Amino acid sequence: MSDAVSPLATPFPDLPAISGVTPRVARAGYKNWGRCDLTYVELAEGTTVAGVFTRNVCCSSEVEIGRANVAQGHARALVVNAGNSNAFTGYRGREAVEQIMSQVAEHLGCAANQVFVSSTGVIGVPLPKDKAREGVSNALAASECSWEEVARTISTTDTFPKGATATAMIGDTKVNISAVIKGSGMIAPDMATMLGYLFTDAAVAPGFLQECLAQANRRTFSCITVDSDTSTSDTVLAFATGKAGNVPLASFDDAGADAFAAAIHDVCRQLAHLVVRDGEGASKFIAVTVTGAVSDESAHRVGLAIANSPLVKTAIAGEDANWGRVVMAVGKAGEPADRDKLSIGFGGIWAAREGLPLADYDEAPVAAHLRGQDITIEVDLGLGQGRTQVWTCDLTHGYISINADYRS
Amino acid sequence: MSDAVSPLATPFPDLPAISGVTPRVARAGYKNWGRCDLTYVELAEGTTVAGVFTRNVCCSSEVEIGRANVAQGHARALVVNAGNSNAFTGYRGREAVEQIMSQVAEHLGCAANQVFVSSTGVIGVPLPKDKAREGVSNALAASECSWEEVARTISTTDTFPKGATATAMIGDTKVNISAVIKGSGMIAPDMATMLGYLFTDAAVAPGFLQECLAQANRRTFSCITVDSDTSTSDTVLAFATGKAGNVPLASFDDAGADAFAAAIHDVCRQLAHLVVRDGEGASKFIAVTVTGAVSDESAHRVGLAIANSPLVKTAIAGEDANWGRVVMAVGKAGEPADRDKLSIGFGGIWAAREGLPLADYDEAPVAAHLRGQDITIEVDLGLGQGRTQVWTCDLTHGYISINADYRS
Repeated sequence: MSDAVSPLATPFPDLPAISGVTPRVARAGYKNWGRCDLTYVELAEGTTVAGVFTRNVCCSSEVEIGRANVAQGHARALVVNAGNSNAFTGYRGREAVEQIMSQVAEHLGCAANQVFVSSTGVIGVPLPKDKAREGVSNALAASECSWEEVARTISTTDTFPKGATATAMIGDTKVNISAVIKGSGMIAPDMATMLGYLFTDAAVAPGFLQECLAQANRRTFSCITVDSDTSTSDTVLAFATGKAGNVPLASFDDAGADAFAAAIHDVCRQLAHLVVRDGEGASKFIAVTVTGAVSDESAHRVGLAIANSPLVKTAIAGEDANWGRVVMAVGKAGEPADRDKLSIGFGGIWAAREGLPLADYDEAPVAAHLRGQDITIEVDLGLGQGRTQVWTCDLTHGYISINADYRS
Repeated sequence: MSDAVSPLATPFPDLPAISGVTPRVARAGYKNWGRCDLTYVELAEGTTVAGVFTRNVCCSSEVEIGRANVAQGHARALVVNAGNSNAFTGYRGREAVEQIMSQVAEHLGCAANQVFVSSTGVIGVPLPKDKAREGVSNALAASECSWEEVARTISTTDTFPKGATATAMIGDTKVNISAVIKGSGMIAPDMATMLGYLFTDAAVAPGFLQECLAQANRRTFSCITVDSDTSTSDTVLAFATGKAGNVPLASFDDAGADAFAAAIHDVCRQLAHLVVRDGEGASKFIAVTVTGAVSDESAHRVGLAIANSPLVKTAIAGEDANWGRVVMAVGKAGEPADRDKLSIGFGGIWAAREGLPLADYDEAPVAAHLRGQDITIEVDLGLGQGRTQVWTCDLTHGYISINADYRS
């Protein structure tokens, strides 16, 4: 955890314990941090799992193995290493992950592919097997810890711990979701990156859990960007212990399935926003809404072109209603757009409509909006019904300081 | 022109006069700059023209009209406005361009579509017709000026004037190319952007001139990036007066055609590098070479993913041989890559080979290289014969200051 807390930080919420989920933290000593850096979460027998992973083709062994193991649908434990991403370490990195899986599987008496491992931190350094072995031993012997301790222990360059919760009714049964995430830029200075974990006591078949997570991912984690850089380790896993005792959910046809999917989506959106709020150097949270595109996919690509544009992001940092830069970003997205149908606004106030600056445009309320911390940009393409919302932060001197003013 | 000159600036070279080309500058007063802001270049009868333009779909009227007029292949004049991009101004912007074309065509007794107009500067403000008319009148009455005056007059936020020259032998005839360019970021604060003009006394058929320019563009202007933002006004035009008296070139089968194409390419590369050297906030010039890709196109996309990565660019600003960020950028490019075949180097020294950090990697010479101003990054994908070279600059506090520390 970093010393300087993001100005956009929010307090860690009260997360309910999840029946069948026992988190513990320990020290493996990957770095000289003087704090816990290894998280171990034990999951009751019968827990199902779903996962979404980075599309970066240079991904870590953890991602490769995790993607393969999600397919069998069940999980008994999660291990998260902080301080070493184990990425770009070849067969030695893979061996370290397999060692952790074996060690935990032996302890629990389960199959090794039911143990999920994630790592973030420096790259190019194989995860030291001796430290990992001792850290796991320590964690297996530790007592249960709080969700906030988990959130702090999985963090690397994050400036505040991040968690979210939601509930849903499945028939007469209330189910809980508690979730933590780390991330402070798609990639932080040492390849720290986004790792998110959702735990629920709901009984959910793995296929349906995957469907819910993938659907939520498309509208939440895939809609945030800090710096357009896609990490080698991004992972979000959802675990469902079934201890709430609801009638198990297997498809959207089941009673309560919509409510459960909505709760998963809610938690994912909260987590995604928290990552943006801890974006490197962020001073403003920016929501970009694109409407009138030829399709939702097209709207999404236009939204990300705006959210990734250094010139748009620096304009917001400068509290400048520079809609010309938004025009530029729309035009470079490579998607259908018609300059003469394009409308652009800030904080719900149009600055330009259908290709022309508004003659009676009143800058005062827009300027007041841009002085705030929560900024909205509205773009209407005027072509069709496609729409999206994406989230980002501004680009400030803080980002440069974090990423350029040091040597690794 | 800005006050603080880029640390990467180079002196303006001696550019030869080009027979059949008469440049003049004047004041239209688009901004309170107290300097000339309108450039007029008269071209002898029979001059051929070629052009390449931005792919931004929200392009200016100047780009739309220019693209259409290049098709007829002949030019008599060029007018460049500085301080107002006339982009996103609808029919009123278009009328201003047509007025300039008519005024010059009437003066020269030529077709209006042989008059080429470019504008850069603020957007969303229609180019004022009265100022344009008076500026053009002043320019038509002005005496001939130097190439350096042209380079200064077309500039907006540039920090130094930029020009390049090359010669070629076509049979026994020596032909000259003199060229100027402006640009300091794909987009500078007020939508200033890249405009480049090449003038040659060679006799060249318009189709072949277009072929030479388009080919050079693919390997020069399309291979530079400052901030990944594609402007609404980017334009490069080439004019050939034919006054050198060579046997006219019409295809690559003609004697001297290869030499001429090479000279055009040489000038375009020089101009492209000058734009990067004046990149907003640039302190280092970075050449990224990608080899071993499955195709040249694939190498190009990987190269741009590296050159556009904020994390790679800030690492270079911090003089940090952070090859992990290069791995990340390769992996996110969406092109074929195999983590375990990937090699990465700086200044010609490999830091990682075939997916693993080099055991005997000596950081000292790499650190010395990164302290310099001219940086190279080498990436070998180990898959095929595809290769590219792209150029960019680092991402510094200067970029943030230029783009965020003011309001428009």
